[in-house]
Amino acid sequence: MLEALKKQVFEANMELPKRGLVVYTWGNVSGIDREKGLIVIKPSGVEYEEMTIEDMVVIDLQGNVVEGKYKPSSDTPTHVYLYNTFKEIGGIVHTHSNMATSFAQAGRGVSALGTTHADYFYGTVPCTRALRKEEIEGEYEKETGKVIAESFKEIDPMSIPAVLVKEHGPFTWGKDAADAVYHAVVLEEVCKMAFNTNLLMQTGTAAMQKALLDKHYLRKHGANAYYGQN
Amino acid sequence: MLEALKKQVFEANMELPKRGLVVYTWGNVSGIDREKGLIVIKPSGVEYEEMTIEDMVVIDLQGNVVEGKYKPSSDTPTHVYLYNTFKEIGGIVHTHSNMATSFAQAGRGVSALGTTHADYFYGTVPCTRALRKEEIEGEYEKETGKVIAESFKEIDPMSIPAVLVKEHGPFTWGKDAADAVYHAVVLEEVCKMAFNTNLLMQTGTAAMQKALLDKHYLRKHGANAYYGQN
Amino acid sequence: MLEALKKQVFEANMELPKRGLVVYTWGNVSGIDREKGLIVIKPSGVEYEEMTIEDMVVIDLQGNVVEGKYKPSSDTPTHVYLYNTFKEIGGIVHTHSNMATSFAQAGRGVSALGTTHADYFYGTVPCTRALRKEEIEGEYEKETGKVIAESFKEIDPMSIPAVLVKEHGPFTWGKDAADAVYHAVVLEEVCKMAFNTNLLMQTGTAAMQKALLDKHYLRKHGANAYYGQN
Amino acid sequence: MLEALKKQVFEANMELPKRGLVVYTWGNVSGIDREKGLIVIKPSGVEYEEMTIEDMVVIDLQGNVVEGKYKPSSDTPTHVYLYNTFKEIGGIVHTHSNMATSFAQAGRGVSALGTTHADYFYGTVPCTRALRKEEIEGEYEKETGKVIAESFKEIDPMSIPAVLVKEHGPFTWGKDAADAVYHAVVLEEVCKMAFNTNLLMQTGTAAMQKALLDKHYLRKHGANAYYGQN
Repeated sequence: MLEALKKQVFEANMELPKRGLVVYTWGNVSGIDREKGLIVIKPSGVEYEEMTIEDMVVIDLQGNVVEGKYKPSSDTPTHVYLYNTFKEIGGIVHTHSNMATSFAQAGRGVSALGTTHADYFYGTVPCTRALRKEEIEGEYEKETGKVIAESFKEIDPMSIPAVLVKEHGPFTWGKDAADAVYHAVVLEEVCKMAFNTNLLMQTGTAAMQKALLDKHYLRKHGANAYYGQN
Repeated sequence: MLEALKKQVFEANMELPKRGLVVYTWGNVSGIDREKGLIVIKPSGVEYEEMTIEDMVVIDLQGNVVEGKYKPSSDTPTHVYLYNTFKEIGGIVHTHSNMATSFAQAGRGVSALGTTHADYFYGTVPCTRALRKEEIEGEYEKETGKVIAESFKEIDPMSIPAVLVKEHGPFTWGKDAADAVYHAVVLEEVCKMAFNTNLLMQTGTAAMQKALLDKHYLRKHGANAYYGQN
Repeated sequence: MLEALKKQVFEANMELPKRGLVVYTWGNVSGIDREKGLIVIKPSGVEYEEMTIEDMVVIDLQGNVVEGKYKPSSDTPTHVYLYNTFKEIGGIVHTHSNMATSFAQAGRGVSALGTTHADYFYGTVPCTRALRKEEIEGEYEKETGKVIAESFKEIDPMSIPAVLVKEHGPFTWGKDAADAVYHAVVLEEVCKMAFNTNLLMQTGTAAMQKALLDKHYLRKHGANAYYGQN
Repeated sequence: MLEALKKQVFEANMELPKRGLVVYTWGNVSGIDREKGLIVIKPSGVEYEEMTIEDMVVIDLQGNVVEGKYKPSSDTPTHVYLYNTFKEIGGIVHTHSNMATSFAQAGRGVSALGTTHADYFYGTVPCTRALRKEEIEGEYEKETGKVIAESFKEIDPMSIPAVLVKEHGPFTWGKDAADAVYHAVVLEEVCKMAFNTNLLMQTGTAAMQKALLDKHYLRKHGANAYYGQN
């Protein structure tokens, strides 16, 4: 069943290590067939190198396994909660990509600093509040979905298809699994730029001596250049 | 028409992902035939992996499409404005390369800090002023060209073939498309070094204990060395 | 003898350059057969590209070479001390991986900042005290083992399978050689995230102008989008 | 003539892009035959991808070209001065490797912070004073050699086989060309670690909440683990 969706979700999962977003098994992608109300998701703890299309797990919108020889990702209840709450999304990604996770660890959203961000995220990518002790000790993965949804009460999830879960890492989504992965890649790039920008804005700068600037520029350019074979 | 130029521009575009300057479709290169007054530019939003020489779009110096099955890059009016204003340039590149974009987001030019910079850029690579609201809401891409030109009123664009557009990213140019890409690579390298230098200049340092320095150096060097197979 | 263990230890060693944890010969992995009381370890100063399974050296729990044409790693006495002290561990790794070594140089443990860390290390990865001059000048490599053990007086080494030796670098361990390498990879990732998080927490941030955010987002999304071929 | 040395120097040059130390043509390696008093060096401005053994240039200890169809590296007078002054060295490398150049731009030597440094450099890798205007405008490349030598008046160049030229970049050397490249790789690694260490020492840190640490560790470890397929 759902052969086309399984293929899509499998390929989206394989894109994560290829794009440098995950090491080992630290990530998962799912996709949904809204008509049938069925979700396809990565199995838990299976190595990317060994994973096949047939290993994908099918679950319903209550989180019950409908088909699959493996247990689904341990983050499945988060995915299920989000599909039930964000009715327009067709795919979800979770990673521990390095810089997005660093922002999550700092408990800090990613504010829009330039057009690279603005091309995909229409404002600050929010960071959730910390989960409460009783939420962590209760249905933890489902509560993770709830605290994400809480951050989007005033935001259209299709206009900012990403979130950072505090002290944890990023979730992104999109119209399908591939689109969700695309947003995970963009988020990581945008976080790297925001990190660099924030640091730069705290530094002063200097300038090299003029004589050396002249020497090197004119050694390569203009009438008296002597670098290279001409 | 313009087969040689199309090939050049295509190859220059393909160099961008190879050099790590773009992810997905975030960049574009153009080249100009000054005699014919025709520009060849990348189509908008086409994946690098699927792009062919035939996909290149030909436009004139008024920005009209002369040949091509695709729409040209959405940044075309910026390229056109620059070719009309900087009469000596033969190629233009726009990327969102990570560190150059970080400087653009910080609204900060890149001052010359060493000979790597001085070999290619004869002074500070400028950052434009922010575009005004009415410029952004008007002919935005053309206004981007104008604000770049404004930054070069006192600078020869051939001696500093690069600029950062505030809150956006870098544009570079050169005698042809390949030269413009070369400058995009250099700019990114120079920005990484400037970032590191600026941060370093704000830190103190320390030193390890002498006994451990002695131990490790002398474990590998001199009469009493015992590391390795000799 | 110990052919299976030699193969395991050889493969674990080869994983280090593949995962970007070592340059040249800067790392070593060992594994132990607890029943026979024999350790297999990398030879000292042999290039990874040239190393074969047969080059692995067999030593006993007193550090005597039992089999092997090469001298064992110069860090062998550290490995031996740890196997004698941490009775449950089956493999040990030492690297100079970039960020973990930076924490060691700063003399600073890695505190748990997020779930990536919590998935593998149950609390702060400790940094040892500095070795004393007499320890460095005495049985240095064995003293390195002792100062590691000293840091684990109150910690179960199986719940935090990693340590930073001050002014030196990381050691990790696990149930076997492959598991120890896995922990070395995780430690490096976690250190990168902690570095970024610590830096981020000291910076302020800013935000781009609203008009440009609107322009770029709406240039690609919604009814008036004009980016791409549609 | 000097076929073995040419091959050595060619291979050492090709190692620079392979190790990520140079982009385009930004580096050069030479080696010397002390008996014959002849130096083999990379030609100026030739692309690594196109370079062959036969392109290597032979010069004497006065800097005269003895054999070769190309002009030698523009940095040749620096190499020649160093061979004449440091009598024990057999190979020299110049690069603009990213982090070493950043230290040079900051005008700052690299102090020994850990054993990775101590294994190869017996103390602080010095940074030269700035060249004076008249030195830059005079025999610039030779003066670069002199200012390096000036920094080693009190230091044995074989115990610290590296230097940073202020506002320029690193030079390293060794017993032959391959050894000099090895030291260039080590210097870049050591600079990255020193950069990270210096930054880290200025930051505070934090810790995640205990309930989440417990949850994630115990979700993967111990009796109640539920991550993965077991």
